[in-house]
Amino acid sequence: MIIVFDPAQRAHAPARELHNGSFVPHADTVARADNMLAALGDWTLAVDHGIGPIARVHGADYLAFLQTAFEDWQGAGRPGDAVPYVFPVVGRRPLNLDRIDARLGRFAIDCGTPIAAGTWQAVYAGAQVALTALDHVGQGAAFALCRPPGHHAGADYCGGYCYLNNAAIAAQAAVDAGKRVAILDIDYHHGNGTQDIFWERANPLFVSIHADPRTDYPFYWGHADETGAGEGAGATLNLPLPHGTGLAAYRPALVQALDRIRAFAPDLLVVSFGADTFVDDPISHFALRTADYPVIAADIAALGVPVLIVMEGGYAVDALGENVAAFLSGFD
Amino acid sequence: MIIVFDPAQRAHAPARELHNGSFVPHADTVARADNMLAALGDWTLAVDHGIGPIARVHGADYLAFLQTAFEDWQGAGRPGDAVPYVFPVVGRRPLNLDRIDARLGRFAIDCGTPIAAGTWQAVYAGAQVALTALDHVGQGAAFALCRPPGHHAGADYCGGYCYLNNAAIAAQAAVDAGKRVAILDIDYHHGNGTQDIFWERANPLFVSIHADPRTDYPFYWGHADETGAGEGAGATLNLPLPHGTGLAAYRPALVQALDRIRAFAPDLLVVSFGADTFVDDPISHFALRTADYPVIAADIAALGVPVLIVMEGGYAVDALGENVAAFLSGFD
Repeated sequence: MIIVFDPAQRAHAPARELHNGSFVPHADTVARADNMLAALGDWTLAVDHGIGPIARVHGADYLAFLQTAFEDWQGAGRPGDAVPYVFPVVGRRPLNLDRIDARLGRFAIDCGTPIAAGTWQAVYAGAQVALTALDHVGQGAAFALCRPPGHHAGADYCGGYCYLNNAAIAAQAAVDAGKRVAILDIDYHHGNGTQDIFWERANPLFVSIHADPRTDYPFYWGHADETGAGEGAGATLNLPLPHGTGLAAYRPALVQALDRIRAFAPDLLVVSFGADTFVDDPISHFALRTADYPVIAADIAALGVPVLIVMEGGYAVDALGENVAAFLSGFD
Repeated sequence: MIIVFDPAQRAHAPARELHNGSFVPHADTVARADNMLAALGDWTLAVDHGIGPIARVHGADYLAFLQTAFEDWQGAGRPGDAVPYVFPVVGRRPLNLDRIDARLGRFAIDCGTPIAAGTWQAVYAGAQVALTALDHVGQGAAFALCRPPGHHAGADYCGGYCYLNNAAIAAQAAVDAGKRVAILDIDYHHGNGTQDIFWERANPLFVSIHADPRTDYPFYWGHADETGAGEGAGATLNLPLPHGTGLAAYRPALVQALDRIRAFAPDLLVVSFGADTFVDDPISHFALRTADYPVIAADIAALGVPVLIVMEGGYAVDALGENVAAFLSGFD
């Protein structure tokens, strides 16, 4: 399998995030990428596709904000990484805002997604990793080793450690190339950003298996009654599962997800893969084991659809590479 | 002038708030109330009007949340005061959420409005202070010494140090008593909660003079183009002013506000008064002086409408009582 990476993604290294009432060390460490690279071996360097395919998914205001946010934060005399503290939860709309704190909240959904010195450089590279991996998808699979992840990022917001939605950017590029695309999100957390981006679209189809948002981030998205709107009505399928879910309970949801995707008859499947479904993940509560990942992958591969796998979460760092390698092995 | 207070408001004493990227000591200290009491002299104890008038403004889900949030926070093993970290900025809707962190974000707009052990007791008392002061409004003015403030709190959210919207609760009670009510908000910050609560209502009228939200909290509300909707179309008037505004620049906005209120011909005027327009306020940027407050008050009193004054912000604690006394003196 082709594995695509870009070392520029290391430039993103925030120190802290606000979680459950306290600042704690940021969970999306550079070591996540290192552990995956060590387990996976050879990789291909991403090719720059420019800002064009990114701007097909993310708004110009948001992209301009991301590129200068950390500089503006420092210019305002703020300490550490840039984090918002107030949010437009009512009447969200485009606004011309001067203060960096105002713009941070305008373009974010949480205080757990800090913007640091190298964030833009890293996330731009991450989007190129996804686009380059898309170029390599043949009848088999290709893997985009993206870090930071992307599926919590919406068209005009960051959140959940995500800034640019790599899976959505690749899916949109494929749609723009005339393809019928399904997205299967099997990160532990609901892919709210991907859902929002394609909420009113019939293509791509968005299907997600994730922890019930009644108990788990992102809380306000991913409930089973969210099924899309407008032309996208019915083109979103959310399958929330409870804490403690192991393979036996996971697989029926996967069968349901794959049945829906099969019925959609896509030309391409984009898999947002998170290894935070792993039993020892420090911030998650499913019970999948390393040996379960090839089983899940084989179920997906049995669709017989070309697959682009885009890396999302997974915070049991020491086991991350092994879990990712196990998942990828199921496509061989 | 009748001054109404309730010592139970002292029970609210959070230690910290997230502001501009760091946890800092909470600006809405108990000392604010103490300084006002020392300057104002005799006061009348609030009378309990029950939850009924509060529930006319705030949703049942939100009120239930506020009453147990701190206990739930402690029950989840979280440290310190309860603060959210993620917010439903997209697709906000009623949701059945289990985790306290999820419910905190569901019912808040920022991380600067911590819920502490005595918060519910204090804010319930504060609403009763406003309702009791309303009972005392005759042809002259009455003052509700509310602390914490209220005008940033919406029907189902806390924010900006505010939990229950004391001014809105009193205004609604007056409307329910058949009165035509105007609200004049002259706190430094826009009264987004009051605006949201009455956004689609023709009565009360809502008029606010405040720092331009391009640079100042609450950022996403209070822009001049926000004028109400539905039956409330045109019944919201926002007059944002720039940093450095002193009396000479403030008074024309006040004249405009009072002209609008006069044209509305209210039976009652509710003034949301903040002394954070004071030149030495540590978190604000207007340039009003103590001697300016009686001038502003006299302009308002000249309307000849019965006035309920509800205390909002003001964080130059040592000067707070003096500034409030100066303002109230203008109604004599």
